[in-house]
Amino acid sequence: MEKEISQAVIRRMPRYYRYLGELIEAGAERISSGDLSSRMNVTASQIRQDLNNFGGFGQQGYGYNVKYLYEEIGKILGLGRKHNIIIVGAGNLGQALANYLEFEKFGFEITALFDINEKLKNQCIRGIEIHMLDELDDFVKREKVDIAALTMPKANADVMANRLVELGIPAIWNFAHVDLKLENQDVVVESVHLSDSLMQLSYNLEQNAADR
Amino acid sequence: MEKEISQAVIRRMPRYYRYLGELIEAGAERISSGDLSSRMNVTASQIRQDLNNFGGFGQQGYGYNVKYLYEEIGKILGLGRKHNIIIVGAGNLGQALANYLEFEKFGFEITALFDINEKLKNQCIRGIEIHMLDELDDFVKREKVDIAALTMPKANADVMANRLVELGIPAIWNFAHVDLKLENQDVVVESVHLSDSLMQLSYNLEQNAADR
Repeated sequence: MEKEISQAVIRRMPRYYRYLGELIEAGAERISSGDLSSRMNVTASQIRQDLNNFGGFGQQGYGYNVKYLYEEIGKILGLGRKHNIIIVGAGNLGQALANYLEFEKFGFEITALFDINEKLKNQCIRGIEIHMLDELDDFVKREKVDIAALTMPKANADVMANRLVELGIPAIWNFAHVDLKLENQDVVVESVHLSDSLMQLSYNLEQNAADR
Repeated sequence: MEKEISQAVIRRMPRYYRYLGELIEAGAERISSGDLSSRMNVTASQIRQDLNNFGGFGQQGYGYNVKYLYEEIGKILGLGRKHNIIIVGAGNLGQALANYLEFEKFGFEITALFDINEKLKNQCIRGIEIHMLDELDDFVKREKVDIAALTMPKANADVMANRLVELGIPAIWNFAHVDLKLENQDVVVESVHLSDSLMQLSYNLEQNAADR
């Protein structure tokens, strides 16, 4: 059943998780789908539908238990178990990701960075070593790697992504400004296209200006 | 008419733009919606529908002129004119954005960074000065600012976003791990939630593992 859940639903789950985390911080114990709905700008029926994909979690007349729902969504998102991440491309963006502590709270641990720039050799970011790219194969054979974050220019991104997949890494978190063309379709790819996001903002900015 | 175009359509426009750019680099002069479709993994009818929102651009039996379509989509996205960006939060992510050259190609220029960390005072990233936050108001009154990128922790993100909007900045590019609550609804907000993206990846990774 779960296989058929659309990516649009999955995309909303981290948002639910985030809001529920905020509610816990604020000391809330339960919430109605109506209240959750007005906070999140999603209809109450949408919330019920989304959560029903995974079995519901709500009780008629009570709403949702905040902590329980938070934990269940966490499990659905696989946040219960530890995920090791390597970062391929130790430039500014790669280093920024390595320095970002938020991910560790959710079980994502960055275990190594890789680059071709000799100047970065043996340097560390927050205790995480930058390796040269020729050490990649040995590293991946030796250590469990769940996710490779690709923070390198687009020119070689496809070649590198396919190499990472051949080494057995099951997921690519792609920051290169390109939609990856992978030979193996069985790999999880999630892309963050910063320029696309900026262009969407730019469009909306132009529209707003035109409306004034 | 343009006001009614859905954000789902707008979200695909930068992708079209990106692909057309790749086609130009590869020397292509024209392309059918069928070819564009198979490259982009979007149906040909979707592409035609999307582009018809803006007036079409294709010719029956010829397809699309790559360079012309690229330029027209660029105009639609507002890439023709210069946008000034300030970055609020000069930590790792803020510095990574300041160092990222890709944005300038599309007319987005980063003109200043702001932070409260005294150690960063008067430092420069690629020639762009890091100012202390108490200089923000004067700077915004003096210089045209189109977009503020918010790369600071979530705790103060709402307060800062509302301050930026009050100063007259018409668009916020939000990287804080929170959905901003703005008093002024007339502002453009585009969020990049890195943790959400990682959680969506994590979900798909778990599903793939379960299928094996």
